Amino acid sequence: MLNTIRLLVQCQNKQYVLEQIRCASQVLPQLSAEKYNVKRKDFATVQSSDVNFFKTILGNERVLTDDNDVTPFNIDWIKNCRGQSKVVLKPKSTQEVSQILSYCNEKKLAVCPQGGNTGLVGGSVPVFDEVVLNLMLMNNIVSLDEISGALICEAGCVLENVDNYVRERNLIMPLDLGAKGTCQVGGNVSTNAGGLRLLRYGNLHGSILGVEAVKADGIIIDCLKTLKKDNTGYHLKHLFIGSEGTLGVVTKVAIHCPVLPKAVTVGFFGVENFENILQLYKSAKSSLGEILSAFEMADRDAISSTVKNLNLPNPISDYPFYVLVETHGSDEGHDGEKLNRFLSKEMESGLILDGTVTSEPGKMQTIWNLRENIAGAGLRHGYVFKYDVSLPQKHYYELVPKIKQRLGDKAIVVCGYGHIGDGNIHINVTVPEYTREVAGLLEPYVFEEVSALQGSISAEHGVGFRKPHYIHYSKDRSALQLMHQLKTLMDPNGILNPYKVLPEEC
Amino acid sequence: MLNTIRLLVQCQNKQYVLEQIRCASQVLPQLSAEKYNVKRKDFATVQSSDVNFFKTILGNERVLTDDNDVTPFNIDWIKNCRGQSKVVLKPKSTQEVSQILSYCNEKKLAVCPQGGNTGLVGGSVPVFDEVVLNLMLMNNIVSLDEISGALICEAGCVLENVDNYVRERNLIMPLDLGAKGTCQVGGNVSTNAGGLRLLRYGNLHGSILGVEAVKADGIIIDCLKTLKKDNTGYHLKHLFIGSEGTLGVVTKVAIHCPVLPKAVTVGFFGVENFENILQLYKSAKSSLGEILSAFEMADRDAISSTVKNLNLPNPISDYPFYVLVETHGSDEGHDGEKLNRFLSKEMESGLILDGTVTSEPGKMQTIWNLRENIAGAGLRHGYVFKYDVSLPQKHYYELVPKIKQRLGDKAIVVCGYGHIGDGNIHINVTVPEYTREVAGLLEPYVFEEVSALQGSISAEHGVGFRKPHYIHYSKDRSALQLMHQLKTLMDPNGILNPYKVLPEEC
Repeated sequence: MLNTIRLLVQCQNKQYVLEQIRCASQVLPQLSAEKYNVKRKDFATVQSSDVNFFKTILGNERVLTDDNDVTPFNIDWIKNCRGQSKVVLKPKSTQEVSQILSYCNEKKLAVCPQGGNTGLVGGSVPVFDEVVLNLMLMNNIVSLDEISGALICEAGCVLENVDNYVRERNLIMPLDLGAKGTCQVGGNVSTNAGGLRLLRYGNLHGSILGVEAVKADGIIIDCLKTLKKDNTGYHLKHLFIGSEGTLGVVTKVAIHCPVLPKAVTVGFFGVENFENILQLYKSAKSSLGEILSAFEMADRDAISSTVKNLNLPNPISDYPFYVLVETHGSDEGHDGEKLNRFLSKEMESGLILDGTVTSEPGKMQTIWNLRENIAGAGLRHGYVFKYDVSLPQKHYYELVPKIKQRLGDKAIVVCGYGHIGDGNIHINVTVPEYTREVAGLLEPYVFEEVSALQGSISAEHGVGFRKPHYIHYSKDRSALQLMHQLKTLMDPNGILNPYKVLPEEC
Repeated sequence: MLNTIRLLVQCQNKQYVLEQIRCASQVLPQLSAEKYNVKRKDFATVQSSDVNFFKTILGNERVLTDDNDVTPFNIDWIKNCRGQSKVVLKPKSTQEVSQILSYCNEKKLAVCPQGGNTGLVGGSVPVFDEVVLNLMLMNNIVSLDEISGALICEAGCVLENVDNYVRERNLIMPLDLGAKGTCQVGGNVSTNAGGLRLLRYGNLHGSILGVEAVKADGIIIDCLKTLKKDNTGYHLKHLFIGSEGTLGVVTKVAIHCPVLPKAVTVGFFGVENFENILQLYKSAKSSLGEILSAFEMADRDAISSTVKNLNLPNPISDYPFYVLVETHGSDEGHDGEKLNRFLSKEMESGLILDGTVTSEPGKMQTIWNLRENIAGAGLRHGYVFKYDVSLPQKHYYELVPKIKQRLGDKAIVVCGYGHIGDGNIHINVTVPEYTREVAGLLEPYVFEEVSALQGSISAEHGVGFRKPHYIHYSKDRSALQLMHQLKTLMDPNGILNPYKVLPEEC
């Protein structure tokens, strides 16, 4: 019960609360080490002298060692992984992070950096007894240049809080995720989070102006520039974007915030088949051009199971496929004209069977709620195998019917949904409970298929703890060797987020 | 004369032809090694046995050793640097690049990778007798996905040629430079080229989907994915973007091409002072929002000297400052309405003193010609000290009057122009001829001032041969150490583009 309350306090996004309660109120998940048969590496074990040292840096209150206090930090939110850490540290400054890492590196104590812990691949919780380095108290906004849109904030800032802050100043954060009420900016950067509006505002490698990070040896790498153009030497910040805390701990971030759109409109359409969705996407790119901010799809099973499981309304009738189109623009009249013209044209052409277009905030939220809740809705059935893959657009939906056929009545629901504009599809396979038989039918099958189509086996969720042994489906031997070399260079003792990202052999 | 012809053949962009003729028809520039007092590093010297080996890979015709043939590849286009290479290699495939590098690495022969050789910091020509590895024959477009906009091309493709190719398919390249008729995509990626429309289409770290590169040891790193989202391990491609050929040779590039705008409009405005330009920029971001594709400025001296020296027309009268605003949109009517509304509002407010708005291609070209020719116009006076710096926008123009005052009548023209939206100002100081006295007044003064304002001493031109000893003004000791470590990891013999980017000590 204590854990439940803690999780709730951390969790500011309503749609997550539901699942967090569910997770916390059930029995503890199996230990990751046992579940996945992992062998502990030869790190030191935290001693009372280590805890005392941490307390000299952080004081007593920011060093958690009580089992009840530590447990929530050991479990990921989908309750798939559980670590065995005995100590959670909550630094408040980059200097403190530096001191902690320098000490751990010298003592060969493994460290698991942790942000909002909303990851889906077990990257943000320990596997064994790694020291949890939680950044939640580094949550200050440092500065905002309202003319250029350059924001500097600490890594532990919750994405939604920062977004609210910049919205009051007519700017927005360039990324938006379902987990925005819980996830932290440092975690977003470390995992190269994508999300719902990458189509419009680009990826973090483009939006991040600067990063301050601490290497495993405690050395602070200050690349915290707020400049859009800076070609003075190697672009080091990119080493920390998307390396999931294995090359350094991100402590501060400078990010470019675009202008808050004056007009937002959402359309939700029923479509006959996947080929028509691609045609519709091409048409939307041409007709809506610069105002297109999201182009999402979901199949019938994704929508109908979400409607049913979470009792959410579907604003249109039942169709084989659904498309959500959103526009961000600076002139409501112009944008409405463009969207209505697009709608009329494509209803006439037959690409759109039925649809609704709205700019009323409540109605837009209803549509987005339906889309954003697909991810969690399947959990009501039991266990969900979740795949997050990128594919060339023409092959985008091919895997869903293949998996359906392969599993037959072993699956309750096999559904596909995601970001068409980014070639990123999420495939959820719902079963009454986890079985090795279904797992064996799905993996490595899904990854083999993705690899054969030149796709990515992890589009936005990352590799974390769950996928290092599948990474070779998306990275060749030379690339993996270079990854290992970089890891050895930057973290020779391997203390940062061990058992994650890098495969044991390559 | 032979050199002149060769340079002309390579040069497809008219505005560059003028300067190239000037450069090539004069006496050869001083050797870089002498001019800048550089000591040759302990590399091997090319022997006839090495040349024979290269010929077994490339055939006789793609191995240049005749002095007349080799000379143009030793000189940069602004005629500031001259190397002493005896051999130019022109591979046609990644495999050939791999074989060459593997051999050179083993023999400890230094290599200077070269694209279109339009750089401004001496990065693309040898300093001593490095083997020139020119990518010009790797100029094939490999594939284009017209729905997603993902293009794959070889590194030696000329930017303008690729842009023309994708324009025929309703797409554009996401970068545009004055040197587009000569510069190559591989060079653009290796130098993280910025250019005129970064404001709208973002930087290359955001636009590049994948890179194939060859390391110093000949190992091919294949990160040539065309996916917008791929979070499988370290984002290795960024090691090669902007590292100026010192960590590997880029051989193929996958890049995201945005949709060709259906409507383009250009406005050219006279403005009273720099503070008003910043107000105007804020207003343009708000009023023009998503269609704003460029916001450029130039001061009176930049425009008047260009008009005079190159006999170009100025479409408006004489003003202290000029602003060029461009829009890219999908609806001519909507865009014109937005731009005219912006113009009316700001003429009334007094921020714009006078202006012209046009969507006629010829007239737009006239305005862009004036802006793009500022860079070369100063050469007519003699020697130009050129600075390419980024500054926080509020400090953007501060340096120009300071330099004017510092130099007094020692300078013919001190002018500032550039990309306001990116905080990137180019400062040109024109003098009758290069003197150590003026050089001493400018450097390190300019870099000290930029550093004190948290700016970048090289916004888009890079570090190359000319700026390694100033890089500490923009990168701290820890960052420089990490750069050195990366260099040692990826190129332990230091054969790739030596004497460039990295300072000798840090």
